[in-house]
Amino acid sequence: MDIAMIGLGRMGANMAQRLQRGGHRVVGHDPMEAARARAAESGMEVFATLAEAVAALPVPRVVWLMVPAGDTVDQTLAQLVPHLAEGDVVIDGGNSNYQDSIRRARSLADDDIFYLDCGTSGGVWGLQEGYSLMIGGDAATVEQLAPVFQVLAPAADRGWARVGPSGAGHYTKMIHNGIEYGMMQAYAEGFALMERKEEMELDLGQVAEVWRHGSVVRSWLLDLSAQALQRNPALDGIAPYVEDSGEGRWTVAEAIALDVPAPVITLALLERLRSRQSNSFSDRLLAAMRNEFGGHAIKKT
Amino acid sequence: MDIAMIGLGRMGANMAQRLQRGGHRVVGHDPMEAARARAAESGMEVFATLAEAVAALPVPRVVWLMVPAGDTVDQTLAQLVPHLAEGDVVIDGGNSNYQDSIRRARSLADDDIFYLDCGTSGGVWGLQEGYSLMIGGDAATVEQLAPVFQVLAPAADRGWARVGPSGAGHYTKMIHNGIEYGMMQAYAEGFALMERKEEMELDLGQVAEVWRHGSVVRSWLLDLSAQALQRNPALDGIAPYVEDSGEGRWTVAEAIALDVPAPVITLALLERLRSRQSNSFSDRLLAAMRNEFGGHAIKKT
Amino acid sequence: MDIAMIGLGRMGANMAQRLQRGGHRVVGHDPMEAARARAAESGMEVFATLAEAVAALPVPRVVWLMVPAGDTVDQTLAQLVPHLAEGDVVIDGGNSNYQDSIRRARSLADDDIFYLDCGTSGGVWGLQEGYSLMIGGDAATVEQLAPVFQVLAPAADRGWARVGPSGAGHYTKMIHNGIEYGMMQAYAEGFALMERKEEMELDLGQVAEVWRHGSVVRSWLLDLSAQALQRNPALDGIAPYVEDSGEGRWTVAEAIALDVPAPVITLALLERLRSRQSNSFSDRLLAAMRNEFGGHAIKKT
Amino acid sequence: MDIAMIGLGRMGANMAQRLQRGGHRVVGHDPMEAARARAAESGMEVFATLAEAVAALPVPRVVWLMVPAGDTVDQTLAQLVPHLAEGDVVIDGGNSNYQDSIRRARSLADDDIFYLDCGTSGGVWGLQEGYSLMIGGDAATVEQLAPVFQVLAPAADRGWARVGPSGAGHYTKMIHNGIEYGMMQAYAEGFALMERKEEMELDLGQVAEVWRHGSVVRSWLLDLSAQALQRNPALDGIAPYVEDSGEGRWTVAEAIALDVPAPVITLALLERLRSRQSNSFSDRLLAAMRNEFGGHAIKKT
Repeated sequence: MDIAMIGLGRMGANMAQRLQRGGHRVVGHDPMEAARARAAESGMEVFATLAEAVAALPVPRVVWLMVPAGDTVDQTLAQLVPHLAEGDVVIDGGNSNYQDSIRRARSLADDDIFYLDCGTSGGVWGLQEGYSLMIGGDAATVEQLAPVFQVLAPAADRGWARVGPSGAGHYTKMIHNGIEYGMMQAYAEGFALMERKEEMELDLGQVAEVWRHGSVVRSWLLDLSAQALQRNPALDGIAPYVEDSGEGRWTVAEAIALDVPAPVITLALLERLRSRQSNSFSDRLLAAMRNEFGGHAIKKT
Repeated sequence: MDIAMIGLGRMGANMAQRLQRGGHRVVGHDPMEAARARAAESGMEVFATLAEAVAALPVPRVVWLMVPAGDTVDQTLAQLVPHLAEGDVVIDGGNSNYQDSIRRARSLADDDIFYLDCGTSGGVWGLQEGYSLMIGGDAATVEQLAPVFQVLAPAADRGWARVGPSGAGHYTKMIHNGIEYGMMQAYAEGFALMERKEEMELDLGQVAEVWRHGSVVRSWLLDLSAQALQRNPALDGIAPYVEDSGEGRWTVAEAIALDVPAPVITLALLERLRSRQSNSFSDRLLAAMRNEFGGHAIKKT
Repeated sequence: MDIAMIGLGRMGANMAQRLQRGGHRVVGHDPMEAARARAAESGMEVFATLAEAVAALPVPRVVWLMVPAGDTVDQTLAQLVPHLAEGDVVIDGGNSNYQDSIRRARSLADDDIFYLDCGTSGGVWGLQEGYSLMIGGDAATVEQLAPVFQVLAPAADRGWARVGPSGAGHYTKMIHNGIEYGMMQAYAEGFALMERKEEMELDLGQVAEVWRHGSVVRSWLLDLSAQALQRNPALDGIAPYVEDSGEGRWTVAEAIALDVPAPVITLALLERLRSRQSNSFSDRLLAAMRNEFGGHAIKKT
Repeated sequence: MDIAMIGLGRMGANMAQRLQRGGHRVVGHDPMEAARARAAESGMEVFATLAEAVAALPVPRVVWLMVPAGDTVDQTLAQLVPHLAEGDVVIDGGNSNYQDSIRRARSLADDDIFYLDCGTSGGVWGLQEGYSLMIGGDAATVEQLAPVFQVLAPAADRGWARVGPSGAGHYTKMIHNGIEYGMMQAYAEGFALMERKEEMELDLGQVAEVWRHGSVVRSWLLDLSAQALQRNPALDGIAPYVEDSGEGRWTVAEAIALDVPAPVITLALLERLRSRQSNSFSDRLLAAMRNEFGGHAIKKT
């Protein structure tokens, strides 16, 4: 098939390559000159404007968005839609909020343009191993694009599916990331307990390696943890500072909106916020209170 | 009544004073010369040895221990018991683990010595406002010592009671402190949210003051927080470092042993542990994992 | 002063009474016939329409809203504003979201109508004990209404204050309620641990009573807990089902938006959600997983 | 090699089979007649007494314990040791507390008997897929038993290692199980959020299947979850009741003892406790408090 990849950052460029390797023709666009240049070097047809990229496609057009979630998606759609026609398909493969995806799908449906929301997991390893794809939207459109998903996924017959109506793809991906936060935190806590147990002289990379084979906690995240710990056992040079990219927050908000308690996913998010605090006001107030009622010494800054 | 106060630190010295003001005769002992000297200045009969202090009492003797929890209590009892006789009473007013108190009461019962465990709350304000006293042990013995408790408590008819058999006093105090951790953390989090909301320009001492009158969250801890925040609104000079003194840990262990989830008390303890971590291994591993799977940048130390 | 109380439910009717006792003239309106009838019996001037109530006030008018948070406030304002004029004052004393209050204040400012957001704490006890009032909005307007706040508060000189610009009153009240959730959960967990410790034979009402005098955890919520536990020690007939009314959710959302971890307030909310789950899917999946990997028996429904 | 398997329950019988398939001679004992009969049917040499089983081994003897953790291990050792001699080896492959294992190793060392603690993961799938083995104790003894571990593990060169001195094997297994709790809870919460989101009409087994291929959250626990959800999508007939088997509690206790916060592992344990509560006293007290201060209706039982 012919497909336009809009957004040639790390994820978009890799996905474009995997599509090309799979026999598809990919035309690309990115507003950044550098991103376009890198993509061109890898042999892609690259265009400086979105309009040109879209014009290079046969109809009905298939346009894959791989741009930052939020306003950028709306801005890109605002530029893109005037160049599209009835029957064209837009896929948002980024980490958009599922509510935005529902809204956008409705809006494009007014122009008879199909809009699929595709949660995409796999990170920088997806180029090589394939991506896990959770797709929301019109079933016939998903069916029609099967050749695209078959190539992006780890194998033609697995790792991708239409999971529900518009929004279901990004909903599922949001939950996936919430689970990811919880799993990562579980591993991190466990390894921290082993690191602190100095008298055991545990080699954390070795323990992770043993667990990779036959244990109940084996997983891909464990494979990666084993690599990281074998390469840098003391995690030297790494600051205890953990970013979050939004989906965890949405998962926590969704859980509360649904009245479903999700304590572990929630605490995993809070720990990330905590990791970025350098002079916690609440901890200072606790110390002040202890001093007030019990005369307990305060540690001075 | 006549009573020996063993341990003349901040708590013991204050309690001795309150007993004296209430008309009791208090003889004191502390292994530290300086503590004895301070107590002597305030007019107490002070003895350099435990034996002398006990010898200064009429029989049946009443001995109040106000020493650090743990081994010190056992060591003090080992020294003390040879000087006691059938019918004497020992009260442990410190923060002992309730299981230790049950064991000690059983052991002293072999010598027909009564042992009361008395959870004591009130901190440095107790001298002036009276202490809340939760007493475990033989009911008749508690009754007989009523004049002592009536003076230590805020008023003769309230703020003290025999709450159950041996161990019940310290059990109740342990739970009290667990609740205290949870309440303190709740306030600390709330004030931290107001502090961070810069555009509201909230005066935290003022808010605390308003809440002290008529609000659902009014409490003594709020009174103290108001004082602390009015005196030092930005909590300048106070490190975000919060100690814990054992009862919180015991409460968490007890909750798990009883199969009763106590998430808020538990998290309040964990936050104190967290406040003392300076280079969290788990957070560093999270950052490393994010880099492994998503190529996300790591913040360098 | 003359003041219209719009909303004569439990809170509004009580506040109107307290205002009248304090020498103010209160005219009332409620869309519910029954609420109006109850208020009329207590001697208030009651009107069947909002327009009539407002017309009964001298200018500049003072209108206090005590209606359910959310859409009802906007609907009430839509009805009310056409009857108001430049210089009139509207106070929202309910539990509105602070962001709504900022929006409403801006909107009314276009018509030169002052809008104060007043967080009101004290519950059903406020009539007797006075309310804690946290007020956001124009400082001169707050000053001008001082006689109203002085009567509603526990005393003329305390329990009320302008805490900041528009929104600050409801922001502060939101945080107040978040803290309330955390404190309540801390007490609830502690008493549950004592209840489960059967061998101690603790009388929870007695313990609460002891703590009320001199302890670190003394508070108004403890006073109420003592009452509840003395009246009904086993809490017979009460379902383990805990509602929440919105402010806790907002506090959790605000904490995450501000990147400030508030684990105890958050877990207190999650426990309320948990209390309302009757057949947790997550717990069933945990049981299913244990069966899958370990052959552990599943408890059947 | 020749090895005695003491304990022929699910785990012990499976491990014995895997050892036999790998070319080792296994003699077995279990105090339960039925367990012995099942093992005998599968072709193992089974003995009615521990003494006979041990007598059937050449020296130095190798005895693998696969009995319930706790007192049973001590009782088994008390029976076993009189039949052992200098240079024999005992391996505890169960879920013993690491502190017990350190104590036992010291005790057997007095008789010059080697004691290895071997954390064993893999559950009922281990027979087929091999076990992950974390071994603590004397390095030369571990080396000497390499043929045994090579057969039990998924492959001769991976899935097993000596991870440290006595206790390190069971310490590592304890942490493994703590992580397992956290991971399971993370998945459970995520699937519960998808289950509740009815308008998405998600097929949870399908989503799990998609995630198994290429996603960041792929893992063996996800494989098992996918199976469970595909077989029984609504988890019909499964009670929301989750047991725990001790290691999670130990992990939480260890975390607190080490001053390392492990919020996610801790909350995962608390949720299991919560799943077994049917009439939470704390939730009833919360409802009672809300009624006391706000007049909020109580749900009656």
